[in-house]
Amino acid sequence: MRNFKLLVEYDGTDFHGWQKQPGLRTVQGVIEDAVATIIREPAAVHGAGRTDAGVHATGQVCSFAAETPRTPREIGGALASLLPEDIRVRRVDEADLDFHARFSATGRRYVYYLRTEPTAIWRRFAHVVTVPVDIDAMRAAAARLIGEKDFASFTPVQSTDVPTVCCLREIAIDRRDDVITVTCRADHFLHHMVRVIVGTLIEVGRGKLSAERIDAIVCKRDRTVAGPTVPPNGLFLAEVEYGR
Amino acid sequence: MRNFKLLVEYDGTDFHGWQKQPGLRTVQGVIEDAVATIIREPAAVHGAGRTDAGVHATGQVCSFAAETPRTPREIGGALASLLPEDIRVRRVDEADLDFHARFSATGRRYVYYLRTEPTAIWRRFAHVVTVPVDIDAMRAAAARLIGEKDFASFTPVQSTDVPTVCCLREIAIDRRDDVITVTCRADHFLHHMVRVIVGTLIEVGRGKLSAERIDAIVCKRDRTVAGPTVPPNGLFLAEVEYGR
Repeated sequence: MRNFKLLVEYDGTDFHGWQKQPGLRTVQGVIEDAVATIIREPAAVHGAGRTDAGVHATGQVCSFAAETPRTPREIGGALASLLPEDIRVRRVDEADLDFHARFSATGRRYVYYLRTEPTAIWRRFAHVVTVPVDIDAMRAAAARLIGEKDFASFTPVQSTDVPTVCCLREIAIDRRDDVITVTCRADHFLHHMVRVIVGTLIEVGRGKLSAERIDAIVCKRDRTVAGPTVPPNGLFLAEVEYGR
Repeated sequence: MRNFKLLVEYDGTDFHGWQKQPGLRTVQGVIEDAVATIIREPAAVHGAGRTDAGVHATGQVCSFAAETPRTPREIGGALASLLPEDIRVRRVDEADLDFHARFSATGRRYVYYLRTEPTAIWRRFAHVVTVPVDIDAMRAAAARLIGEKDFASFTPVQSTDVPTVCCLREIAIDRRDDVITVTCRADHFLHHMVRVIVGTLIEVGRGKLSAERIDAIVCKRDRTVAGPTVPPNGLFLAEVEYGR
């Protein structure tokens, strides 16, 4: 048996998310079908991040085990011709047998793109916020989220992610012309977590919420006290970290 | 009568180019329909650059004259709600009565995006070139194109653009990670001109053509001696210049 690790980019617009679902076009489903064609038997492909419908990836990592004589290079070539144009495999490596894209991951980095002007070109890849926002206030609020905390207020009540404690290592907010990026790094993320964090930071940026309120929002462990969930189209899984 | 100037962005993927054509979805046709709804009579909207099918714009300029009491701000708001999401009007200004988006323009800037790695995210907005290219050789070739020259070799034989002399003011080639941009500024451009220039520069970058050959290619005034026409999806009309 051999184990393969794939670095994958996708435009999530036309997928019902990463996770396989009967009758729906999902990234995992499409990749598993392509891998099955190559290895000539059903494949189980595990992804590091189970991105939601409409969420993109430039650095998703997935892995599968297979009994195959093919080299990583041959698998990459075959995937390039079998996969649709909205999924590209950037790299194929052979991995240790105990490597698992999801369980071996020690961190994930997501980037959320906001645009402050209406845009035709970037409409699939950014959420447009035309009301003025105060970046410094957003940064002050973001700083209060960093650390090991219970993020229950930042995930839907019905979410099955348990426990709800994550270690949020970094939130960086950058502005350049009409683009604002919010970069979040954590050991792992809860369902919708980045989107609720960004929605809450926008509330702070608009002056509807003070940065100091963040502590109380975290303490309450109540989804209704945090900000709205921003749309999936601005969100990218940028990197999965392994090791350490 | 009043005259209005629009700054327009569009994703050209799903348009048959700028120019109105019966029965086809074109940027000019869609904008004219929206303007006609606003001013309540047929509208003639003139664009500075007649971009081809699949070519995008972040800085197209167009103009129309109308007898209307509406302010530029009101027109902008109405266009925002009437236009499809792949066209956004970034700005509306009232202009002098003798302003004409195309005939008043003194220069245009186009940017062509190349990617050196296969990409799902940017597939609509960049042409992928995975063979290694020598940027310095491309720059040396580009330098030989600058100035007032006859660009007949860089436009289809059947093109009706006459005369074929243009003043190419700048070609800048930049590389950053896996993105190469080719920026071209000229008084005006012939049909396909930027795409043939980029196709020719790639031939130089790949070592199939020497930079010194550029002079002979220009002199020949023969489309068959220049490089191939690269696809429209990497091309953006970035700016239209007025004045001076």
